[in-house]
Amino acid sequence: MSSLTWPGDERAGRLFSDGALIAAMVRVEAAWLAALIDAGIADPDAAVSEPVLSGFAGDDDVGGLAAASESGGNPVIPLVALLRERLGDGHATAARWLHRGLTSQDVLDTALMLCARDAVAQVRADLHVQLGTLVRLADAHRETLMVARTLTQHAVPTTFGAKAAAWGRGLADAAVDAAALAYPVQLGGAAGTLAASVELARLTGATDPVATAGRLVEHTAEALALHVRDPWHTERAPVTRLADALVRCTDAWGRIANDVLVLSRPEVAELAEPAVDGRGGSSTMPQKTNPVLSTLVRRAALSAPQLAATVHLASADAVDERPAGAWHAEWPALQTLARRAVVASSQAGELLTGLQVHPERMRATLEAALPGVLAERDALAELVGPSEDPTEDPTADPLTGYLGVADRLVDDLLTRHAAPDGGGTR
Amino acid sequence: MSSLTWPGDERAGRLFSDGALIAAMVRVEAAWLAALIDAGIADPDAAVSEPVLSGFAGDDDVGGLAAASESGGNPVIPLVALLRERLGDGHATAARWLHRGLTSQDVLDTALMLCARDAVAQVRADLHVQLGTLVRLADAHRETLMVARTLTQHAVPTTFGAKAAAWGRGLADAAVDAAALAYPVQLGGAAGTLAASVELARLTGATDPVATAGRLVEHTAEALALHVRDPWHTERAPVTRLADALVRCTDAWGRIANDVLVLSRPEVAELAEPAVDGRGGSSTMPQKTNPVLSTLVRRAALSAPQLAATVHLASADAVDERPAGAWHAEWPALQTLARRAVVASSQAGELLTGLQVHPERMRATLEAALPGVLAERDALAELVGPSEDPTEDPTADPLTGYLGVADRLVDDLLTRHAAPDGGGTR
Amino acid sequence: MSSLTWPGDERAGRLFSDGALIAAMVRVEAAWLAALIDAGIADPDAAVSEPVLSGFAGDDDVGGLAAASESGGNPVIPLVALLRERLGDGHATAARWLHRGLTSQDVLDTALMLCARDAVAQVRADLHVQLGTLVRLADAHRETLMVARTLTQHAVPTTFGAKAAAWGRGLADAAVDAAALAYPVQLGGAAGTLAASVELARLTGATDPVATAGRLVEHTAEALALHVRDPWHTERAPVTRLADALVRCTDAWGRIANDVLVLSRPEVAELAEPAVDGRGGSSTMPQKTNPVLSTLVRRAALSAPQLAATVHLASADAVDERPAGAWHAEWPALQTLARRAVVASSQAGELLTGLQVHPERMRATLEAALPGVLAERDALAELVGPSEDPTEDPTADPLTGYLGVADRLVDDLLTRHAAPDGGGTR
Amino acid sequence: MSSLTWPGDERAGRLFSDGALIAAMVRVEAAWLAALIDAGIADPDAAVSEPVLSGFAGDDDVGGLAAASESGGNPVIPLVALLRERLGDGHATAARWLHRGLTSQDVLDTALMLCARDAVAQVRADLHVQLGTLVRLADAHRETLMVARTLTQHAVPTTFGAKAAAWGRGLADAAVDAAALAYPVQLGGAAGTLAASVELARLTGATDPVATAGRLVEHTAEALALHVRDPWHTERAPVTRLADALVRCTDAWGRIANDVLVLSRPEVAELAEPAVDGRGGSSTMPQKTNPVLSTLVRRAALSAPQLAATVHLASADAVDERPAGAWHAEWPALQTLARRAVVASSQAGELLTGLQVHPERMRATLEAALPGVLAERDALAELVGPSEDPTEDPTADPLTGYLGVADRLVDDLLTRHAAPDGGGTR
Repeated sequence: MSSLTWPGDERAGRLFSDGALIAAMVRVEAAWLAALIDAGIADPDAAVSEPVLSGFAGDDDVGGLAAASESGGNPVIPLVALLRERLGDGHATAARWLHRGLTSQDVLDTALMLCARDAVAQVRADLHVQLGTLVRLADAHRETLMVARTLTQHAVPTTFGAKAAAWGRGLADAAVDAAALAYPVQLGGAAGTLAASVELARLTGATDPVATAGRLVEHTAEALALHVRDPWHTERAPVTRLADALVRCTDAWGRIANDVLVLSRPEVAELAEPAVDGRGGSSTMPQKTNPVLSTLVRRAALSAPQLAATVHLASADAVDERPAGAWHAEWPALQTLARRAVVASSQAGELLTGLQVHPERMRATLEAALPGVLAERDALAELVGPSEDPTEDPTADPLTGYLGVADRLVDDLLTRHAAPDGGGTR
Repeated sequence: MSSLTWPGDERAGRLFSDGALIAAMVRVEAAWLAALIDAGIADPDAAVSEPVLSGFAGDDDVGGLAAASESGGNPVIPLVALLRERLGDGHATAARWLHRGLTSQDVLDTALMLCARDAVAQVRADLHVQLGTLVRLADAHRETLMVARTLTQHAVPTTFGAKAAAWGRGLADAAVDAAALAYPVQLGGAAGTLAASVELARLTGATDPVATAGRLVEHTAEALALHVRDPWHTERAPVTRLADALVRCTDAWGRIANDVLVLSRPEVAELAEPAVDGRGGSSTMPQKTNPVLSTLVRRAALSAPQLAATVHLASADAVDERPAGAWHAEWPALQTLARRAVVASSQAGELLTGLQVHPERMRATLEAALPGVLAERDALAELVGPSEDPTEDPTADPLTGYLGVADRLVDDLLTRHAAPDGGGTR
Repeated sequence: MSSLTWPGDERAGRLFSDGALIAAMVRVEAAWLAALIDAGIADPDAAVSEPVLSGFAGDDDVGGLAAASESGGNPVIPLVALLRERLGDGHATAARWLHRGLTSQDVLDTALMLCARDAVAQVRADLHVQLGTLVRLADAHRETLMVARTLTQHAVPTTFGAKAAAWGRGLADAAVDAAALAYPVQLGGAAGTLAASVELARLTGATDPVATAGRLVEHTAEALALHVRDPWHTERAPVTRLADALVRCTDAWGRIANDVLVLSRPEVAELAEPAVDGRGGSSTMPQKTNPVLSTLVRRAALSAPQLAATVHLASADAVDERPAGAWHAEWPALQTLARRAVVASSQAGELLTGLQVHPERMRATLEAALPGVLAERDALAELVGPSEDPTEDPTADPLTGYLGVADRLVDDLLTRHAAPDGGGTR
Repeated sequence: MSSLTWPGDERAGRLFSDGALIAAMVRVEAAWLAALIDAGIADPDAAVSEPVLSGFAGDDDVGGLAAASESGGNPVIPLVALLRERLGDGHATAARWLHRGLTSQDVLDTALMLCARDAVAQVRADLHVQLGTLVRLADAHRETLMVARTLTQHAVPTTFGAKAAAWGRGLADAAVDAAALAYPVQLGGAAGTLAASVELARLTGATDPVATAGRLVEHTAEALALHVRDPWHTERAPVTRLADALVRCTDAWGRIANDVLVLSRPEVAELAEPAVDGRGGSSTMPQKTNPVLSTLVRRAALSAPQLAATVHLASADAVDERPAGAWHAEWPALQTLARRAVVASSQAGELLTGLQVHPERMRATLEAALPGVLAERDALAELVGPSEDPTEDPTADPLTGYLGVADRLVDDLLTRHAAPDGGGTR
């Protein structure tokens, strides 16, 4: 997939692409078919390995399946027809047993989970690397003085290390939430009761058809490395949790991009994006080096909340045993959100890795902000009153003397990053 | 373009597709180049007709341009490079003069207007046909009694004609707003001052360079049949108005789809979607005929407001002479919104054209709702008190006697539809 | 009304407050009652003047009516009960005829229009003043050189006059859209057919009850100075148009606030908010002067698009002859949006009126941006090649020589502001 | 607080009201002041107990503080001034030490957590009761046959027990997420470094000022029963997590309300809202009993996603050490979302407790849906082919024979509800 209006989309590669979604749906059908055979429901002749089945539908079918999807409202119906046709005479039994016991939503929802898991896995790996980058950056800049800014104005001294640690806390929080996600199978049949599965088990002589249906779900979940869960046809927490966790990521990257955009303004010039030949150019102004990575990350951060709102709205509008419209509004919002998160993740990682920090400029800005930037300190001295100050060293740099726990904030990030669970308490 | 997760997307065809956007950008460059020559700025040798220039970049370049867009953050930079390269030695002067005086935003924003205009033109044509359909439907069902429902419960009698007229008012409002849209060129150069154009005019001997720059804009606008307007780099009303008008359309279709979804429930069965062989099937339930068109229209109506919110947010976040991120968030939201509106328009039109109305069932429901459905009438009789009622005919159907101005509402739609301006007062 | 979490809310005063909404609902009831009498339906004894009726319910009833509203889901039901009770024996006939022919939605929707009109009137008056301010500002700063910024980086020279003119175009567009709004009565009775009104007319001997019902609507609309329109129970363009126009305003103010926030950063210092004693202080940092007005305007601009999305969503979710939930979600979104727009309008006006411009600093920044800021110009010179440049004056300030049509943009704003219709073409 | 446009708002009582927010801010100041004294920084004479301090500002001050908040952009600045004034001469030392070391954001953010915790506690308690109700309802209706509906059409048989269990899974998921929330103090001083606290510790002779500042945070957190956490000035996961969890609740209630709205339509009549005298009336139709609770719950579900989007957007727009506008947009969105969630929770609970279930009507609908509703079963029989079916009992009710695991779904809810942790795996 590529998009002329979402530059950088190709960074997401096949993750949650239409082709990947087809492949995931085929994997679900294959796993279910194997489970049917394993449970003694389908004829062993129906066996067709996942690689073989996957060979019958792929990226080349995106256009055709997309076009054929409208008739039934979703892509599963034409996919099943296509697979049955291509299984053909060579795999007639497989064709006959394919998809039996399932409904479209089972296949699509479970495939969405597979695609989402892959996308989140990429994001999580990126976040881990980014946190490592920030740990190094924060550690290296413990003594890099800069001015803290609130409501755009100079506030008090801080360090770039403390700022990098704050960025890191944002990423660490996002990583914790991404790690907490579960990816369940959706397997409920026509209306969430697995009636067809139980009936098939009964018709083929199972002694405990309900238990057999349960094993079909377990077997399929195991084959796909997904969680077992009662159906969530119309209880969409598995999807809204995904959307929320992804937005938490774009929030965190967006906040970093915002800082880079402000601090790389020529009047500030405390940070700069990594210099890459040819990047950041203008179509008409030869001198330009635009902060393109931050720009594109910020774009994602501005767009993601509305996509998550659509996913939530779809959840809030659920009704019956499958809603007419809400379910359909959910997939493209989730897909777009996931791909954009992967793209922003990649861009944010590149931004952090090559970020240029200008300590001299930071210090100069801070010094120019004197004496206002120490007005709070002076007010405190006045509050406490004249005293013999045993710790005061009149030759000391007054700026380094008002950094509070800045250094400890860096330590905390290091400790958190070193923790086995990513230091993740909520 | 096609989308596995937005079934029906191919109904939009090339309207506002990535390929169409490339073509539109090339048209903008061609028109500007012609204006430069016409104004005596560029060498007459630079002339290259629009068809020729359009031959140098097209659908096959979508992938390549998309990938090359990230470096500068937008697709214009690589497009200009590609065109210059392909103009090559055969059109060296054209290559040299191409894009001179413009900035990326000029080309992309103006191209967005071209694409949006085409999409809205389709929607407007559809709305006109749909209104015709509703006029006929309303007229035919002036006497088709049905129960009005409020907060899901039976209220008072009405007619299906009155309901169709209400649908029609929604479409007519949407059509008025769509007709009111203007499509301006965005031509401001690097920062909205046309400095490069004025400078080029000066360097090439124009006596009034500012006036010459103005003529460049007029000439280009005329060639593209767009409006002349001062730059809107960071004043995005032309874009937010588009988004709002498109959402007004999806709102109106959504409201119709909602009614069809309720009234085609088997327990109600007063309406049914057009029957099309093979449509509305399920992957597992042979008996199913799902209201797929309404489902897909509702999907669009649920998703569109958030897309328009993103467009507005981008407008609200504008800053400087070109914002870093807000501008970039706007294009995909507008493109997606426009294509989805075209798709929903087509689906809504098909839905209305083939809509099945079941007057007997409507009447049966209404009769079953007696006497409650006339409780308001009885209360009024009690209020006014016993009177000789000269107009009362004891043999009259009490249901047809409580329809108020239902018939006039149908007349109003007919009148409005017949008006030359679509009857459009806001 | 006041809000601890929306500082400045009291700037909206009574506009669209809960108390104002009660007053508006009472006005609607009064106008309708007068129309009933005028049409010969209600007994002349039912006459009770609007001031008298308005005396029976007011701000003191907000709490009581709010609490009583839940039972029926809207505030009209308890309001009618309250009015009837208070009309009591002294106005027994009025009490008996009050609200006859109406439904809750008629009263609430029409009252929303009255409240919205008052809010928009304030915004329009403010916009007119703000445009005057910007016209003066743009005119005064035609020659105030500053650097244009794109994607946060220095681009080319411009003038502050051109920037002010761009702000003005944004406000003028918003003003055009606000002026185009219509405020219709919603009068349809229980299900939009005016059945009760026609029945009342019939029962009281009208010769043409349908025409009489039409006159009731016209009479009421005239009394309230609202437009006549067929019912819009479930066709919500009158409401979505309002929401869209209000967001267009907050977009335009937000864009100005963003510029002020950037340009009043201490490193830039080209603009400053009006200095007001005690404003912009911090709870702990004595030196702080925060740009509070811009901050609060930006807050509104970030929040408004989601409120409008809710209004659109309510429109898209309309169903039946009155939806269960969508209608109810619309009022608070519209009320909040309108009040916040009024507050932001007032704050933006104050911001513009007292805005401090620092031309020397602007010029210094621009000079420091040389030579890059003229790189585009140099590239054009190279393109055109060595030539005798008859207009070139080697002693001229190179910066003032690359301003393009900046001056004409100011002229255009002046012309537009002077036009009788606000220069409003869309 | 009450709201004419959000009927039912008073159900939220003081939870997250403006008055409650003032009380919470005072609690934060009191806890911090105690910590300052305990750490040996503030004079012991500064001691003023929380009840005493709380007596100095309360609900009566909402209007005054709201009006005074605009000047600094937030309510903390005037609150501190008010408290100092009222502490007056009687508590001069307390007045002098109040708020020392804090910044406005510390007080407001920490108070938001206190208010949010109270609101979520109410929601969690409600969810627990609601789950109990659903457990009983599901258990009681294990054998209540009804038709499952997908895309509005009849699908296959199910039970109302299975539907109630599905509702329960939605609530249980929401409860798990609500239980996972953490409520941290925000204590970072002017720019998140606690510089003022460390300086105060140093000036008053602390041997390890950084450690002392750490103890201030711990002491305050302990007093307020909040978590210790490094500052989250600009890393807003604590707030977005809250918003997401609250929307997950409104999603879950919304889905239930949607089912009730459909199933209580007169043509379906399988469910009805609890009958309460006088509730659900119309202002004009005497026969009406509208499903008001479901209507109001659905309203909340439609509105909440956009509020959470605003909270996320504020997080994504964070910049510097305190953003100008984003932070300010967050509080009212969170407050509104929390109060509406509490209101919807109460309404949903009342809806579930008194829900009327009509098993005969459910069965009648299902029987009328034969044979289509068993078409899937018949297709399976054909698939498997003629066989001796040892378990088939020709006298059995075919409808009860196609319920799949419906019964087990009920069991699962019972088990989950009985689990000590709410059965909450994500």
